[in-house]
Amino acid sequence: MTLADRWLLPEGVDEALPEQAAKIEHLRRTLLNLHESWGYQLVIPPLLEYLDSLLTGAGSDLEIETFKVIDQLSGRLLGIRADFTSQVARIDAHCLKDDGVQRLSYCGSVLRTMPAGLDGTRSPIQLGAEVYGHGGVESDIEVLSLMLQTLSVAGLSNVVLDLGHVDVVSGVLSACDLTAEQEGKLIELYKAKDLPELDRYVDGLNGLRDVQKQWLVGLPRLCGDKDVLQRASELLGGVNESIRDAIVLLQDVSRSICQRFPNVGLHFDLSDLVSYSYHTGVVFAAYVPGHGNAIARGGRYNNIGEVFGRSRPATGFSTDVKALVALTDIVVNKPKTVLSPICSSNELWLKVNSLRAEGYQVVEVLDDHYTGKADFKLDFVDGAWQLLPVRS
Amino acid sequence: MTLADRWLLPEGVDEALPEQAAKIEHLRRTLLNLHESWGYQLVIPPLLEYLDSLLTGAGSDLEIETFKVIDQLSGRLLGIRADFTSQVARIDAHCLKDDGVQRLSYCGSVLRTMPAGLDGTRSPIQLGAEVYGHGGVESDIEVLSLMLQTLSVAGLSNVVLDLGHVDVVSGVLSACDLTAEQEGKLIELYKAKDLPELDRYVDGLNGLRDVQKQWLVGLPRLCGDKDVLQRASELLGGVNESIRDAIVLLQDVSRSICQRFPNVGLHFDLSDLVSYSYHTGVVFAAYVPGHGNAIARGGRYNNIGEVFGRSRPATGFSTDVKALVALTDIVVNKPKTVLSPICSSNELWLKVNSLRAEGYQVVEVLDDHYTGKADFKLDFVDGAWQLLPVRS
Repeated sequence: MTLADRWLLPEGVDEALPEQAAKIEHLRRTLLNLHESWGYQLVIPPLLEYLDSLLTGAGSDLEIETFKVIDQLSGRLLGIRADFTSQVARIDAHCLKDDGVQRLSYCGSVLRTMPAGLDGTRSPIQLGAEVYGHGGVESDIEVLSLMLQTLSVAGLSNVVLDLGHVDVVSGVLSACDLTAEQEGKLIELYKAKDLPELDRYVDGLNGLRDVQKQWLVGLPRLCGDKDVLQRASELLGGVNESIRDAIVLLQDVSRSICQRFPNVGLHFDLSDLVSYSYHTGVVFAAYVPGHGNAIARGGRYNNIGEVFGRSRPATGFSTDVKALVALTDIVVNKPKTVLSPICSSNELWLKVNSLRAEGYQVVEVLDDHYTGKADFKLDFVDGAWQLLPVRS
Repeated sequence: MTLADRWLLPEGVDEALPEQAAKIEHLRRTLLNLHESWGYQLVIPPLLEYLDSLLTGAGSDLEIETFKVIDQLSGRLLGIRADFTSQVARIDAHCLKDDGVQRLSYCGSVLRTMPAGLDGTRSPIQLGAEVYGHGGVESDIEVLSLMLQTLSVAGLSNVVLDLGHVDVVSGVLSACDLTAEQEGKLIELYKAKDLPELDRYVDGLNGLRDVQKQWLVGLPRLCGDKDVLQRASELLGGVNESIRDAIVLLQDVSRSICQRFPNVGLHFDLSDLVSYSYHTGVVFAAYVPGHGNAIARGGRYNNIGEVFGRSRPATGFSTDVKALVALTDIVVNKPKTVLSPICSSNELWLKVNSLRAEGYQVVEVLDDHYTGKADFKLDFVDGAWQLLPVRS
C-alpha cells in the first residue's frame, strides 16, 4: 500500500474536518432539541445487532444494504445497522411497555454496502423520529410536519414534498386479477415510468375489462400538483374502498400541510414505488432543487413490531445530517478565544478554568508558533492575571 | 428464530432507552463543550475505512479487535473502527497542514470484536482528545489535565490516576543484553505480576551482572505512591539516560497534577505493560473504586502519523461516555411539558410553535390516553389559546 493510498477513504465514505464537524454537531443538537420540544424522546440503539433482528420485518429490503460480520463470541451473523427503523420498532415493542402514544427520536451513523443514488453516501448520520401507537391521519400529519419543520430549522427553503400512498398501486393491481408475472411486469414499468411500453403491454393483456385497462394505464399519469387527487378520485374512486380511503387521507394531509407550510410545494405521485416495502400507508419524500436524492423521507408502517411480539401502528421519517449541512449555510457561533501562558502557577490555572467556565475558549500556548486567531490574551499586570484585547 | 431471541442483543452490545439516552446526550454535549473551551476542535472520522489505513501504525494492536467486511465496490477489506487514534492521526497528517500545535477532539461509536475486561462492552461511545505537534512535558500535562477535568465535569470523584512510562521497561531490558526469548519471558512475568516466579527466573539467568539482576527483579516492585519515583531514581538512575529522563518527566507530571487536582490519588507502576504498543512516552489510566476497567486512558505516541507521511509528536486520551453515565448520577433538566389539542387551526399551530421555540415541550394529544406527566395545558379561553397549569 503506497503512502497516497493510505489517505484514501472508501467510495461513499467521508470524514468531517473541524469547520464542517462544528456545523454537523451544531445542527445535530438543534434538531434533537427541536424534536424534544415536540415531545419526542431520544433513544440510542446499538450500532450492531444479530442480523435476524435487524432484518426482521422492516428490514427485509435492507438485506443487500447491510454489512455483515461474524460474531466471534456466538458464531452468529451480526449486521451493522443500515437504518434505524427496525431497531426503534424493537425498542417500542420490547422495552417500552406503555400502551399509549410513544414518540421516539434518534441520531447516529448508519452504514450501507452500496451508495444511495448518484451523489450517494454509504455513511450518513441519520436523524429521525417515529410515532408508535396511533393509526389516524393526525399522526401522519404530525410526523410530516415535524419533518418539514426539521428541514426549515436546518435552513432549507424551496422544499418540494412528494406524497403518495401504497394502497393505490396495490389496490389497482389486486382489482385486476393479474398473474404474479403480470403484476411483476407492471411494477417494473411503473418504476421505469415507461409509459409508451406500459400502454402497449396493457393493451395486449387478455381478459381485462376496459375500465381495468384504464386504471392500469391511468395510474402512473396520476402525477403532478393537487389536481391529481381530484383526477384520482374520478378515475379510481370505483376500484375499492381502500383506494377511496387513501385518496381522502391524502386530501386531509395535503390540506393541513398547505395551511401549516404555505411555502412548501406539493407534488403527488400515486404510482411511486421507491419507498421501502415495509410501508403500509401514506409515504412521502422531500426534495430540494439541485439535489437528486430525497433529503428526507418517511411514511406509515403499521405492524412493524409484530415480529417482536407487539403489533402497533407506526409512522416516521428520517434525514441525513451531513446532507443537510452540505445543502445549507449554517453559521456556528464560536466562543471568544484567549491565549494563556502555560499554567505553571495555581493562580493562573484557576483563572484559566474560571474563564473557560464563563464561556471563553482558553488556549495554553505550548510553543511560540501559535497560528490561530485570538481575541484576548492573559497577562500578569499589576500583580494579577488580566484579560487584554489582542490587536489583529 | 423465536420471538424471545429477536429481542436479544449480542453480548457486550447495549442500547440506551429514553432516560439513559438523555443522560448520554447531555454528557456528550457537556464534555465536547469542555473540550472546545480548552481549544480542541471537533473532527468526525468515518465509521469505516480501508483496513490498511485503520490498522497502520497506531492500529496494529487493534487488528484482532476490529470487525472486518469486504467492500462490494472495491473488493478490498474494510474495517469498522475499534479506536479513533489512527483516524485522527491520518486527519492531522493529511488534511490539516498547519505546522503548529493541533488540538483535536472526537466523540462517536466504536465497535470491538471482543468485550474489554470483565464488565466490558463491545460498543463504547468513545470520547477523546489529542494534541499533535508538541513533544514536551507541557502537552502531556495538558492532556492529562483535560482527562481529569473531563472525569470531574462528568461527576466522578475518588479518581485514582495510574502513571507509567514505556521507556522504563524497554530501557531496563535493552540494558541487560537479553535474547528475544528471555525478553519475551520477562514481559510475560511482568504482565502476570508473578514476582516469586520472576525472582527464580532472573536468578537463573546466566551472564548477567548482579546490578542487572537487581534492575530486572526490582522493576515490577516500583509500584505504589509518589515514593516510587525516588526509589526508581535510586535503583535505575544508572541504567541509561532515557530512564533518567522518563523519571524526571514523571516527576514533573506528578507535581503539576498534584497541584491542579489535589483530590486525585496518584499511583505509579513502572512495569505496567497494558497500554497499546504504539505509546512512546508517558502512559496513564484513571480508575474509580468498584470499576475494574480503567474509565479513561491515554499517553504519548509520537510519530504515529509517519505512515501517513507526516511524523509529529502526539499525546491524547479517551474515555467511554456510556461508562461515565453508568458511574455517575447525571441530572438532566427537562423542559416544562404542555399538552395541546391537535392543531387543526392555524392560530393554535402558531401558538404551539412559539411555545416550543420559547423552550416548552408541547405535545399534541393524539388520543385520550396520554399517560405522561404535564405541567400545563393549552385551552381556548376568552377567545384565545392560553396556557393553564395542570394540577397533578
